[in-house]
Amino acid sequence: MVEPWQLLDTRDGFHNRWLHVTLDTARLPDGDVYEYTTIRRSKAGAAVAVINPQGQLLLEQEYRLPVGQVIYQIPGGLVDLGEDPTDSMRRELREETGLLAGELHYLGSFWNNPASSDGYCHLFLCRDYRNGGVTERDRAEFITWDWYNLDWVKARVADGSIRDRVVVCALAYLWLAGEIA
Amino acid sequence: MVEPWQLLDTRDGFHNRWLHVTLDTARLPDGDVYEYTTIRRSKAGAAVAVINPQGQLLLEQEYRLPVGQVIYQIPGGLVDLGEDPTDSMRRELREETGLLAGELHYLGSFWNNPASSDGYCHLFLCRDYRNGGVTERDRAEFITWDWYNLDWVKARVADGSIRDRVVVCALAYLWLAGEIA
Repeated sequence: MVEPWQLLDTRDGFHNRWLHVTLDTARLPDGDVYEYTTIRRSKAGAAVAVINPQGQLLLEQEYRLPVGQVIYQIPGGLVDLGEDPTDSMRRELREETGLLAGELHYLGSFWNNPASSDGYCHLFLCRDYRNGGVTERDRAEFITWDWYNLDWVKARVADGSIRDRVVVCALAYLWLAGEIA
Repeated sequence: MVEPWQLLDTRDGFHNRWLHVTLDTARLPDGDVYEYTTIRRSKAGAAVAVINPQGQLLLEQEYRLPVGQVIYQIPGGLVDLGEDPTDSMRRELREETGLLAGELHYLGSFWNNPASSDGYCHLFLCRDYRNGGVTERDRAEFITWDWYNLDWVKARVADGSIRDRVVVCALAYLWLAGEIA
C-alpha cells in the first residue's frame, strides 16, 4: 500500500504565458517534510493520428528549439480551456494541414512526465477526413507534412529517427486497439 | 524543407536543483524574432522493463505529487553525468527493487516533450537478473513493486489505468522489437 503525500503549501517559482513552476511543500508518508518542484500546465495537450485509406500515417516535420532538431510528429496542440479535445484536434488538424476531420476515435491519454509535471496528452485516431480546409499557422509554426507507410514509421521509431513520445505512444495505442499490426 | 531556427540569446528564467528554465530568443525562418521558454535538463532519464521467465512485467507503484496519484511505473531515474545509462539502470533497479541485473538490451529513446523541454529517456529491457541486492531508497521514495501479466498491463494501458508515457512507450518498443505480442 503506497500512501499519498499531503500537500502543505505551494508557491510560485516561475510563471509566464507558457510555463508555471511551483515550489511545493509536502508531508511524506513517514511524516518528514519535503520540498518538490512541479511544472504545472493549465492546458491539456492533444494529438491526432490520421491514417489514410492506404494505411499510411500523417507525419509532420517541425523544428523544435528545445531539442535543436527538425523532428517528426503528429498534428496536435494545446486544448483551450473549456474546449472539447476533439474540437481542438479538428481545429489543429485544419490549421496545420488543411484537412477537415469527421469522426475522431479516442485512443488514450498519457502523462508527459508525472515525476515532474501534471501535463498530459489525449490521443485520437482519425480515418475520416476530407481536403479543402484553409491552413492557418501560428506565427512560429513552420510545418511540412506527408503520408508515410506504417512499416516505415515503425522502423524509424525502432531505429530512433522518430523520438517524440507522442508518436511512440500513438503506435502503442493503435496496436492495443487493433488498428495497426 | 523545414529550416532550423537560429538561437540568438538564452538567459535563465528559473534555476534550482531540479529544474532549469531558460528564456530563449530565436530568429525564425522568416526572419522574425521570437521568444521561447525552454525546460532544460542536465541529466537524461532512463528506465528498464524487467520481464520474468513467466513473461510478466515488473511494475512499481509510487505516489507522484505533480499528478496527485499513486501511479504504475517501471523502475528508472536520472542518469548521473558521466555515468553509463546501463550502469545507472542496474543501480536504480537494485536500489528500488533489490534485483541485480545482468545483461540489458537497449530498446529506444524518446523525448518527453520536445515542444517545451530537451529532456529525454532511454529505455532498456532486462530478462537477466537475480535476487539478493539491497534496496536503498531515496528519502522521498516510497515504492511497492510486483509482477504483472502482460495481458493485464496491455488492458490497463488501453483502459487508461496506466498513464505514464514510459510504460506506454515501453510497450511500443517491446512490440516493435518482437519481444512481446
